[in-house]
Amino acid sequence: MAPTDLLVCTRCRLAGEDPGEAHLAARAGARLHRALVAAARQAGAADGAADGAEGVAVASVACLSACKRGCAVALMAPGKASLLFGDLRPEDAADILAAARAHAARADGFLPRAARPERLRAGILARLPAPPHRVSADAYAWPAA
Amino acid sequence: MAPTDLLVCTRCRLAGEDPGEAHLAARAGARLHRALVAAARQAGAADGAADGAEGVAVASVACLSACKRGCAVALMAPGKASLLFGDLRPEDAADILAAARAHAARADGFLPRAARPERLRAGILARLPAPPHRVSADAYAWPAA
Repeated sequence: MAPTDLLVCTRCRLAGEDPGEAHLAARAGARLHRALVAAARQAGAADGAADGAEGVAVASVACLSACKRGCAVALMAPGKASLLFGDLRPEDAADILAAARAHAARADGFLPRAARPERLRAGILARLPAPPHRVSADAYAWPAA
Repeated sequence: MAPTDLLVCTRCRLAGEDPGEAHLAARAGARLHRALVAAARQAGAADGAADGAEGVAVASVACLSACKRGCAVALMAPGKASLLFGDLRPEDAADILAAARAHAARADGFLPRAARPERLRAGILARLPAPPHRVSADAYAWPAA
């Protein structure tokens, strides 16, 4: 199974953070990204994986268009539902990594609320189904949780 | 180029709408879906396409997890950025279809704010990059608008 890509927006700012381009590395999103890379490496060492937590690859993106709900992260893998979460903080790295590992372990990528770590129970911003999408007048039925 | 899938959440409700399962077909999301199917067929007739606007396939989904920002629609196509928009109404079908056609026409699926129809300039909830995602400590650079 392909690993789950854990995409971290490095441009997310919290209230009061300097919007200047000179301070990109200090933004909450950049700090969260660094925390997630470190957490994934630590988990990888425990897993015996060389470069991160087994089944999870941490990537950074410059903007997920969730600017009003930062920090934001997305979980994506081929053939699985994509999930986007907001309202996160750099100190939430452990919960976010746990959610990414759960996404990697689930064949459909679904993470029902009860299966999500505490800090990701609220703040889900989007869940996009994997293609192919059923083109019809009937509602696409999500698989049962 | 593969068509853009225009995914419409049929479960979205506006304030005051009956949450009961008996009234699913009357929900704003279901009405928006019907309006989009009709608009796509009408555009298809003008395009000479048999079953909808050229390059756009309307699909319905039961929940995009954007419940607080309904009505919600997503634009997705292989190899392109996925876009999610919220705060929409059944009467916005024409603008939504125009955005879907613009997504279909753009190789990267990007729709900068200025290129979006009026009703989709605000209300963007997510923009997820197409895989492969660059796994590194550096920010993934979106292509220039």
